[in-house]
Amino acid sequence: MIANTPKPPYYAVIFTTLRNDIDDGYGEMAKQMLELAKKQPGFLGEESVREELGITVSYWESLEAIKNWKQNAEHLQAQQLGKARWYKKYKLRVARVERDAEF
Amino acid sequence: MIANTPKPPYYAVIFTTLRNDIDDGYGEMAKQMLELAKKQPGFLGEESVREELGITVSYWESLEAIKNWKQNAEHLQAQQLGKARWYKKYKLRVARVERDAEF
Repeated sequence: MIANTPKPPYYAVIFTTLRNDIDDGYGEMAKQMLELAKKQPGFLGEESVREELGITVSYWESLEAIKNWKQNAEHLQAQQLGKARWYKKYKLRVARVERDAEF
Repeated sequence: MIANTPKPPYYAVIFTTLRNDIDDGYGEMAKQMLELAKKQPGFLGEESVREELGITVSYWESLEAIKNWKQNAEHLQAQQLGKARWYKKYKLRVARVERDAEF
């Protein structure tokens, strides 16, 4: 769904990933990480679509909230597994949302 | 594909859309708009994935480049058609990319 984010400014983490064909726990882990992210301080929302290419954008109140999420122990394990098992390639971008519009 | 963007800072336009079920020229228009965007000054790259929800992130050198693209005449027509025919709902966010990482 489209995330119901507050008035800018806030932050976006744009995580673009190229997956291999192996599931091997990926779907379950992706679900778990979303549930865990939702419980983090400063989490504002998330949008995600996947074909072979996946784009997940998560929204956060501050850079500190993003840093804390990056260093979360369970998330660190998932990051390791992601590189070892599921992703051929990814790019992660941290951006400050300055304005928005909707329809 | 994952866009091969330069070293930050640069800008991202995160365009999240909820489509109806009607094609009616949508696929063709989306392709045309991407081709047109690529020709604009300051265009850096694009990533796009669609299911019912779609996320398209385009990357730009500057806010001015984004403003020019927003006001491009053919793009303005496409924006009108998008609201009239294809989108139930969308959200567009303009963000300044401050750092990136890749694997």
